[in-house]
Amino acid sequence: MTKTSAITPHENDLVLTRLIDAPREKLFRAWTEPKLVAQWFAPKPWTISRVEMDVRPGGSSLIVMRSPEGEEFPNPGIFLEVVKNEKIVFTDAYTSAWVPSPKPFMTAIVTFEDEVGKTRYTARARHWNAEDKATHEKMGFHEGWGQCADQLVALAAKL
Amino acid sequence: MTKTSAITPHENDLVLTRLIDAPREKLFRAWTEPKLVAQWFAPKPWTISRVEMDVRPGGSSLIVMRSPEGEEFPNPGIFLEVVKNEKIVFTDAYTSAWVPSPKPFMTAIVTFEDEVGKTRYTARARHWNAEDKATHEKMGFHEGWGQCADQLVALAAKL
Repeated sequence: MTKTSAITPHENDLVLTRLIDAPREKLFRAWTEPKLVAQWFAPKPWTISRVEMDVRPGGSSLIVMRSPEGEEFPNPGIFLEVVKNEKIVFTDAYTSAWVPSPKPFMTAIVTFEDEVGKTRYTARARHWNAEDKATHEKMGFHEGWGQCADQLVALAAKL
Repeated sequence: MTKTSAITPHENDLVLTRLIDAPREKLFRAWTEPKLVAQWFAPKPWTISRVEMDVRPGGSSLIVMRSPEGEEFPNPGIFLEVVKNEKIVFTDAYTSAWVPSPKPFMTAIVTFEDEVGKTRYTARARHWNAEDKATHEKMGFHEGWGQCADQLVALAAKL
């Protein structure tokens, strides 16, 4: 286990976890290289039309999702903490350093830990209140993030 | 001027700025050494009863203010960016890395810049919305932060 296993759960977390048969390094690449991110980060038939990432604390992230009908949804955010091959923390509370977004919704905490020769992958969506957590769950957090995790696993197998 | 002068104003900022006859290094110390922070961070007759600071991105900050009647008000927060002698950014949106606070209220952006042999000191309280900015202004932002700036100047002159 890496040190990232020490993350304390929070009552407003929605959590997805998988034991993935791929090394941490490949999953971290899939999370941080724009060309790779574009291949798995939206649940198909949605697609990703643009990815810009400055992967460091205070660096901006912009991921634009496109619906099957062609409508685009920009997701601006900022990285708060990056530990290579171990941990990525980002939030939509800022659109760049340090420009507040209209509405802080969540902080994502993604960890990659060694476990029985595989990688324990955990993605937490941590909300500022119970209402936002409930909204996210109703929006289809488990289905959406689950499908993306499947796509991530398929991509990692090809790296 | 240092590179921190590039900060773009935001419509939800409340701003205090002073040209202070003290070097940047002394003002930065007054902002980051707990024993010094305790001497100026609350407008007298309020006092500071406790200061704990882990001055690095992701590090926690806890400043407890005490009213003249002895009531204590904890102010937990987290540092987002620290550039020695130049810039300090912190927010109350998290109480530690990365535990959301009940209500993200503001991000503070403090800069120290060389200007005509003195230091341009600027403290920005940046809010997530216009309502919180208005509330902060009515709470006495200008008077409170202004008095604290006077206390900061007096302390820096003794360092």
